[in-house]
Amino acid sequence: MELGEFELIEAIAGRTEAGERFEIGIGDDAAVVRGRDRIVTSVDTAVSGVHFGADRPAAESARKAVASAVSDLAAMGLGSEDTEMLVALGAPAETDDSYLEGLIDGVVDAAGEFGVELAGGDVVASPVVFLSVTVIAHIDAGTPVVGRSGARPGDVVAVTGPVGGAAAGLRLAAGLEVPALSDLSRELLITCQVRPEPQLTAAPVLAQAGASSMIDVSDGLAADLGHVARNSGVTIRIRSGEIPVMAGVGEVANVIGDDPVSFAISGGEDYVLALTIPQERFEQADTALIEATGFELLAIGAVEPAGDGDGVVILENEDGTRSDAPSGHDHFG
Amino acid sequence: MELGEFELIEAIAGRTEAGERFEIGIGDDAAVVRGRDRIVTSVDTAVSGVHFGADRPAAESARKAVASAVSDLAAMGLGSEDTEMLVALGAPAETDDSYLEGLIDGVVDAAGEFGVELAGGDVVASPVVFLSVTVIAHIDAGTPVVGRSGARPGDVVAVTGPVGGAAAGLRLAAGLEVPALSDLSRELLITCQVRPEPQLTAAPVLAQAGASSMIDVSDGLAADLGHVARNSGVTIRIRSGEIPVMAGVGEVANVIGDDPVSFAISGGEDYVLALTIPQERFEQADTALIEATGFELLAIGAVEPAGDGDGVVILENEDGTRSDAPSGHDHFG
Repeated sequence: MELGEFELIEAIAGRTEAGERFEIGIGDDAAVVRGRDRIVTSVDTAVSGVHFGADRPAAESARKAVASAVSDLAAMGLGSEDTEMLVALGAPAETDDSYLEGLIDGVVDAAGEFGVELAGGDVVASPVVFLSVTVIAHIDAGTPVVGRSGARPGDVVAVTGPVGGAAAGLRLAAGLEVPALSDLSRELLITCQVRPEPQLTAAPVLAQAGASSMIDVSDGLAADLGHVARNSGVTIRIRSGEIPVMAGVGEVANVIGDDPVSFAISGGEDYVLALTIPQERFEQADTALIEATGFELLAIGAVEPAGDGDGVVILENEDGTRSDAPSGHDHFG
Repeated sequence: MELGEFELIEAIAGRTEAGERFEIGIGDDAAVVRGRDRIVTSVDTAVSGVHFGADRPAAESARKAVASAVSDLAAMGLGSEDTEMLVALGAPAETDDSYLEGLIDGVVDAAGEFGVELAGGDVVASPVVFLSVTVIAHIDAGTPVVGRSGARPGDVVAVTGPVGGAAAGLRLAAGLEVPALSDLSRELLITCQVRPEPQLTAAPVLAQAGASSMIDVSDGLAADLGHVARNSGVTIRIRSGEIPVMAGVGEVANVIGDDPVSFAISGGEDYVLALTIPQERFEQADTALIEATGFELLAIGAVEPAGDGDGVVILENEDGTRSDAPSGHDHFG
């Protein structure tokens, strides 16, 4: 690697124009940014070989790291207005310049794509490539924020799109052969895995429409609804037959002898939103979502009072049997 | 490792009380925090084997990562009032629970020691242990912020304490034998390396007293003043005989056949503040600093108009000769 830390930072700073909210941008000890009544902030980290493949294009991997971080803002019911991010980048000293430049391209382009401004960064030597992305959104006192703790018995449980695609795409990207899939279906599933779409347009619409709790599906639908159930002190029941499964997931599941539903509820990285919303607000939210995004709000279950367990998600199968949903993906397990 | 990601996050959340500025703390998709007129934000990353020794105690390493991050706020002239941090932690799945718990202890204790609140975190599997720490300080419209670009010809160049100790301590911690050093001196130098003290008390005093530019000495005095010189469009001249060198650095430099001054100006990680300040404000700043911290402000040079080069730091030796100062530590070189 020929680029030093300072050259890398200058390469990033030179490609970023500090917006009018910025008093001091990249290139000082810290950035100084105009505030509003509140901030919403989160950090998300992607490690090569864990969260993205070392063999994937650098820019795509950097974009995925940024997408995953801004998705946490969507999960709070926010878009990306008045939002900045800071990116810490680790890479081995022997990394090719072209790979490093690809990571920088990916970060800068993703900032543009998602409408966030780059406020700072850090470049360090590390045996493994990683990107740690902090997002900071500035919002007004009256902006609705949707956490994980507002689900109430009687609420509808819904998602903004199909799940399972990213997990199926992961297998395909790793080389799994699924003869029943067309090339197009195969590409679409891999795209779910490598190019997730954070729901920055849908999120504020659903917050405004009265979602009582919301989360982005990153760990897997069951695990993520488990977080909501635990934080809200409720039980969540999902009807497995109503879970929208991404097209082609069934074929992938078949080849490896797994159940498409378990792919869908345990896979993770789909980055659609899962939410709860009072029954009487569902229809209006659905209409607003269709107007804003063209996509329907898909009801998949209901919130019930807490039973014996803590944060339990129950899966109601089509034959009427029930089972505790698997807890899904733990990045650290 | 027995602890999963969720258990780790719960362990952290359970040890942290969300302050009254927090609407939503750890345990949701993002934290929601009351804002003020502006934020000052920065990210700093520490990697095992690069920024801290894999053989050092986990809590000490985590504290160092946090200290280095909050030091960037000091470099802007701020203390830690109304400041939160987010910590991304990477660790191999096979890491001992006791080491992980030590990292968490170190983060939580450092938050208390430096007076910052923990707003969020992320725990990921990684082949190497790292901590990426983002700090966010909320300040009023009128709070003075001191960047790197305000140095003007005629300003005094000063530091808030001795340098070179951390670099000497690094050699000692690695096992270098220096018979001329007492056990106490040896321990003090190692402490400089493993337990840096961000200047959160000194920083706002110096900002208030009219510092025109400021930086924390992390890359090395010469490199850091080089950043100031470049951002300010000036040349900085340092008088090598006036650089305060930490006691014992001479003995360490002797053993490895190096010059104590080059240790002091190239070593880095000292986390004292280097600043420029108009001549007429120096005395008042010195008095204010002594009142607040007990330590003097130490003049080591002067700001001059930009010469031929860009961001040049000139070292004036005691025999009257001059040389370009070495550029210091590049984490990525």
